[in-house]
Amino acid sequence: MRQSKYFLKTSKTTPADDVSVNAKLLEQGGFVQKALAGVYSYLPLGWRVLKKIEAIVREEMDAAGGQEVFMPSLHPKANWEATGRWQGLDVLFKVKSQHGNEYALGPTHEEIVTPMAIPVINSYKDLPLAVYQIQTKFRDEPRAKSGLLRGREFRMKDLYSFHASSEDLEKYYNEVAIPAYEKIFQRLGLNALFTEASGGTFSKFSHEYQVEIESGEDVIYICEKCGMAKNKEVFEDGAECTKCGKTSWREAKASEVGNIFMLQEKYSKPFNLQFTDSDGSKKTVIMGCYGIGTSRLMGVIVEKFHDDKGIIWPAAVAPFKVHLISLKGGEETAENLYQDLLNSGVEVLYDDRDLSAGSKFADADLIGLPYRVVVSAKTVAQESVELKERAGQESQLVKINELADKLKN
Amino acid sequence: MRQSKYFLKTSKTTPADDVSVNAKLLEQGGFVQKALAGVYSYLPLGWRVLKKIEAIVREEMDAAGGQEVFMPSLHPKANWEATGRWQGLDVLFKVKSQHGNEYALGPTHEEIVTPMAIPVINSYKDLPLAVYQIQTKFRDEPRAKSGLLRGREFRMKDLYSFHASSEDLEKYYNEVAIPAYEKIFQRLGLNALFTEASGGTFSKFSHEYQVEIESGEDVIYICEKCGMAKNKEVFEDGAECTKCGKTSWREAKASEVGNIFMLQEKYSKPFNLQFTDSDGSKKTVIMGCYGIGTSRLMGVIVEKFHDDKGIIWPAAVAPFKVHLISLKGGEETAENLYQDLLNSGVEVLYDDRDLSAGSKFADADLIGLPYRVVVSAKTVAQESVELKERAGQESQLVKINELADKLKN
Repeated sequence: MRQSKYFLKTSKTTPADDVSVNAKLLEQGGFVQKALAGVYSYLPLGWRVLKKIEAIVREEMDAAGGQEVFMPSLHPKANWEATGRWQGLDVLFKVKSQHGNEYALGPTHEEIVTPMAIPVINSYKDLPLAVYQIQTKFRDEPRAKSGLLRGREFRMKDLYSFHASSEDLEKYYNEVAIPAYEKIFQRLGLNALFTEASGGTFSKFSHEYQVEIESGEDVIYICEKCGMAKNKEVFEDGAECTKCGKTSWREAKASEVGNIFMLQEKYSKPFNLQFTDSDGSKKTVIMGCYGIGTSRLMGVIVEKFHDDKGIIWPAAVAPFKVHLISLKGGEETAENLYQDLLNSGVEVLYDDRDLSAGSKFADADLIGLPYRVVVSAKTVAQESVELKERAGQESQLVKINELADKLKN
Repeated sequence: MRQSKYFLKTSKTTPADDVSVNAKLLEQGGFVQKALAGVYSYLPLGWRVLKKIEAIVREEMDAAGGQEVFMPSLHPKANWEATGRWQGLDVLFKVKSQHGNEYALGPTHEEIVTPMAIPVINSYKDLPLAVYQIQTKFRDEPRAKSGLLRGREFRMKDLYSFHASSEDLEKYYNEVAIPAYEKIFQRLGLNALFTEASGGTFSKFSHEYQVEIESGEDVIYICEKCGMAKNKEVFEDGAECTKCGKTSWREAKASEVGNIFMLQEKYSKPFNLQFTDSDGSKKTVIMGCYGIGTSRLMGVIVEKFHDDKGIIWPAAVAPFKVHLISLKGGEETAENLYQDLLNSGVEVLYDDRDLSAGSKFADADLIGLPYRVVVSAKTVAQESVELKERAGQESQLVKINELADKLKN
């Protein structure tokens, strides 16, 4: 993409009312723009990042046998009354139509997915099943000052699984859901800690995936031996680690990027979601739910990977792989190199603007693509370019006609 | 996909309160499920169709130089007051937060995209620019009884273009937007008529793309010579066709699947979206907007392509290419064929259920994939299968070991 034609302007002005690192860097870098507190527009650069995060999540959900669906944001009031959450969920946005109806604006989809499964699940032969979606969610938060970490409107993947028994749910939870989640965080380059959290009425625990960051809103206790964690809400002084048995913990701030939950009969019961078992008896379907905040992940990645100059995107989610910068005397070579890179399928942001080297370098540092290539009069003379890594700042000299091949993989 | 494991059940029961063909066939075929009037969940089968429609739209928007963004659904009240549409747009959903704020629930995004462009557009050198998104929209409709043709919540692509002059907008409108739209409808197999419609305050006309269907909510007049159309709202008896000059029209019902509009300064003026021209003067940016209703398109395709047994999907948007049906004595061969097809990258829905031939054929007719292959004891004996087209019902005998290759292209 030619930067001169891109819907992108960086800014030197720090956002006034948002102190979080992710809001500052993402807004100044031209990735997002705030529409109101906790509500963002994703500009082309930021939307590329979010799409990459969501593509990774989608791939792993598909690999785990999840079937993609798309449920609505307007929910019937009756469904939320059936579960007691019309009054019980404090962050529920309520919408009143001019024509008399009232709707909830979906913050999660148990109230939709459970009745949706009624015509689909008849017999034990129909189970297990799992559906998921990647979608916008809404929460009427009193405060939203942490950029993408806490939104009034945000993006989320939510998967729901349906089972004939609690044993089958547990098997799926441990053997399918947890490995899929670990694969996702590993691909994103994040050390997301498996964390015990409150289980509500139907389970002893739920589990969260927490990433340790200074600006995190959760407090967790991390086992100093094995790295498993407990959320403050379930932590007891002197507790043994569930995984390794040790009792040595350290307190940390963290942000929850995933939450998995054995719902059991919590939602299938009020909606009377039943199946006929092999012995002919009617039984209540057992459910699990599994969330990942994709836009929050984008914020957490920025909180985790940056320096004082800007963002340092992990390769898997970087909006482009390489930032090609043309300086005085290098314009023609840069144009040719740009075409070479495009022809080789390399994702390239090409700074073809008529600006000083200093401005271009500052923008490149802020935007934080994995590689930078500068083409100047000197480059043309030596027939090689410097290929510089954003992380670690290492660089190597590469012959111009070999660059595209080198960046291909 | 194995049908026995798919989140899919067809139904023989016609939806009670919805008379439209698309609602009937899409609900009975297990493509969508109604959450409330005008609000649908897309089940796996239906979501595959919508994703294919949206992928075609995205490809053509990218090819036309559109840059993809993602704007929010919660809009600040102040933005809608600035354009007079907080009171002026009757279908605007308004959301009141418990914390005092009021928001509009986006039915369109001029009120977001225009201020969003302020920091990006400074100089005439930044123009032209075009951004688009594919996204959920909301309209507080009094009635919604036409399935996907009129939704309270629906999917839409909206592109917005920014220009330094009306001449540049006109050039883009005629040379970029219109050809891109025609390419999209052609790829979807739809004859969408270019239709003059009301232009509002700033233009003589806007243009719609209208598909002639019995259940259409619009009345248009189609030139009997060249096929150009006029919406009833701008039609005058005895009018000459803008394209060919003839005066012979026929009245028809149609559904609007696209609308393109020269906004000129309508939104840039209230938001003071300006640029510095080459002579140093400040000027107001000129805008155009270009919508396509992607979920409505899905409904229109069904209204257009069906028979009394079910849907007949055009190949470009069919959820799978082939319906593989195993009957008694053909199970093992069908399993092998399923693996062959998967290995060849053919999108296949495999009816491996233990049901009668009659039920399976009825489902296949209803679901409407382009090809059907039935594997029975007879098939196994003759080492060939019948490859039957859903459209036209033509069929040919194909050797089993050649089927995957044949369906590849």
